[in-house]
Amino acid sequence: MSTLDLAVPSTRYLQKLIRDQSPVSIATRAGDAFNGVLRWQDGECLCLKTAEGEILLWRSGLTFIRPLPPGPNR
Amino acid sequence: MSTLDLAVPSTRYLQKLIRDQSPVSIATRAGDAFNGVLRWQDGECLCLKTAEGEILLWRSGLTFIRPLPPGPNR
Amino acid sequence: MSTLDLAVPSTRYLQKLIRDQSPVSIATRAGDAFNGVLRWQDGECLCLKTAEGEILLWRSGLTFIRPLPPGPNR
Amino acid sequence: MSTLDLAVPSTRYLQKLIRDQSPVSIATRAGDAFNGVLRWQDGECLCLKTAEGEILLWRSGLTFIRPLPPGPNR
Amino acid sequence: MSTLDLAVPSTRYLQKLIRDQSPVSIATRAGDAFNGVLRWQDGECLCLKTAEGEILLWRSGLTFIRPLPPGPNR
Amino acid sequence: MSTLDLAVPSTRYLQKLIRDQSPVSIATRAGDAFNGVLRWQDGECLCLKTAEGEILLWRSGLTFIRPLPPGPNR
Repeated sequence: MSTLDLAVPSTRYLQKLIRDQSPVSIATRAGDAFNGVLRWQDGECLCLKTAEGEILLWRSGLTFIRPLPPGPNR
Repeated sequence: MSTLDLAVPSTRYLQKLIRDQSPVSIATRAGDAFNGVLRWQDGECLCLKTAEGEILLWRSGLTFIRPLPPGPNR
Repeated sequence: MSTLDLAVPSTRYLQKLIRDQSPVSIATRAGDAFNGVLRWQDGECLCLKTAEGEILLWRSGLTFIRPLPPGPNR
Repeated sequence: MSTLDLAVPSTRYLQKLIRDQSPVSIATRAGDAFNGVLRWQDGECLCLKTAEGEILLWRSGLTFIRPLPPGPNR
Repeated sequence: MSTLDLAVPSTRYLQKLIRDQSPVSIATRAGDAFNGVLRWQDGECLCLKTAEGEILLWRSGLTFIRPLPPGPNR
Repeated sequence: MSTLDLAVPSTRYLQKLIRDQSPVSIATRAGDAFNGVLRWQDGECLCLKTAEGEILLWRSGLTFIRPLPPGPNR
């Protein structure tokens, strides 16, 4: 179980998305995609808050994360 | 074979789902999905109790877990 | 190549299935599924005895294992 | 979480693509493909700038990266 | 890059298939399957001799290997 | 990030394909396949020269490599 290294760019990148509560889209290896806001990360998972509740996503099961452009009401 | 680190958020998150016996949905990389209640976790697997019996799921084969909203009788 | 840790619950869970010769169903990430009885496990593989002979399955290629309900003649 | 070893050829190869701002195509295990320019890399991820914004891609979720031939206006 | 541990059952199992030149079927996570005879193994790969020549298969890309029943002329 | 161990058979096997500039076919977990000649390898990737340029392939995303029979003009 990996520990989280806050010095690496991708961890900091995700940490910024969490701090800014930026809307993101996350895709998994199985072809699923989820939109929401990141709550927290650790070495194994990301927690995403979606319109249908929280999801715990395995880092090893992800293919990409993409910050979404701000919507009209933001 | 990974050891379980109870200090990391995702492990604690799963531990809370186990303790609260929260209904969850779990998805695998192969595209399968199972609903049930988590029984226990270790560094390699999660054990889920479903209506059709227990399933042992490999963490490395998972894409996400999602707590389900409480049903009408809960 | 991982060593097998007999102290972790999932290894013990599998060891019990082996000892009891419980019928199980095993699913892989490629979407294959096999029914049979577990023969042995190590840190890399599980050996399953099926009606068509033995299969050596990679743990890293598995998504889940499910004990099957006992059949009518058991 | 892997650290980045700048001595290995693939890391240097990617570093050259970043430095030269070469257009690339990246493919994931889920079958997605993205065109863009690499921004940075670390031991876990690559950051790609596409026409629709940035994407953070997991190295473990990639199958290949291919430098694209220069376009007519380059 | 893993080293090969000849003490674990799956390695010995594969070593026996190599020594006996047993015909086997090997399946990958991508859904491919190959029939042939194992030549050698190491911690990362298996080498299979098929009717169309040799193939080097990544252990991490495999889901299972199955010894085939002997043919009519064996 | 794995280091390359030149003592293991699969690394030597690949090194021979590189040295001999043997035409090969490489398949990925996503189901893609590429024909070309290997340029170099390291612990994370293989570099393949194809008719359409170079490709950097992730070892962890591969399922197999197969030397191709020599063409009519070789």
